[in-house]
Amino acid sequence: MPHADALQRLLHHYQSMPPVASMGIAIAGYDGQALRLTAPLDRHVNDKGCAFGGSLASIMTLACWGLVSLQVEAAGIEADVFVADSQVRYLAPLFGDLEAIARLGGDSTWPGFVATLGQRGRARAHLTATVPLADGRVATDFTARFVAIAK
Amino acid sequence: MPHADALQRLLHHYQSMPPVASMGIAIAGYDGQALRLTAPLDRHVNDKGCAFGGSLASIMTLACWGLVSLQVEAAGIEADVFVADSQVRYLAPLFGDLEAIARLGGDSTWPGFVATLGQRGRARAHLTATVPLADGRVATDFTARFVAIAK
Repeated sequence: MPHADALQRLLHHYQSMPPVASMGIAIAGYDGQALRLTAPLDRHVNDKGCAFGGSLASIMTLACWGLVSLQVEAAGIEADVFVADSQVRYLAPLFGDLEAIARLGGDSTWPGFVATLGQRGRARAHLTATVPLADGRVATDFTARFVAIAK
Repeated sequence: MPHADALQRLLHHYQSMPPVASMGIAIAGYDGQALRLTAPLDRHVNDKGCAFGGSLASIMTLACWGLVSLQVEAAGIEADVFVADSQVRYLAPLFGDLEAIARLGGDSTWPGFVATLGQRGRARAHLTATVPLADGRVATDFTARFVAIAK
């Protein structure tokens, strides 16, 4: 599997954070552009039997954070990655397991992002994430800005 | 304590949701307008030693959801309460325990909200929440729209 070592480090990173360890996150795929995370519904179920909104926001935040972290690491840069702001739309309830797919968004590019980070020690990127439903519709979508600051 | 029974029911409601039970939420105060929740940092700490962004989004979502639920219950209506969309700004890292303060926002009013819910079986409200820092600055702020649908 390409990126296997980097994904193993990312998973370890997730699991080192107590609030994330309790989420039951797995890395379901990464092709160099889109990162997919999954988590079982039973850890994230709300009073209505569907996925809790805070859990959906968390897994989309984590997927985007992980994608930025993978790109920073692939560029050979050591940096802290922060979420600066985010917007979530809850479009339909999710009664199945959680899957979040993160991608670069807006007019950001990874070569531009890592070049800026290397030159200025700080860079910003627009990210997007969605949580699909089993029937192909979207449960939630997410846009956010992330900042990386070189160590 | 005013509202003691309603707050006890709300806390039980929170704790009945697995992802929320693991957060260590406590209800720190409610005056009929503002609901304050707290949670210990050690359950929400990230890789940088400060509060995880997903946890901050979750506690602010829960505080607003709880405030809407309290208002619906006080009006004698049975309704499901959903978050429709939300926006978070991460302004400064939080290295202490989490506290979220939820209030009504925008041009929504509680009398208008419950009147609409009673008449149409459905109503929408704008909510705001903030997480303060110990020095009085704000760690994160949050705006959201919530929908209540009568059962």
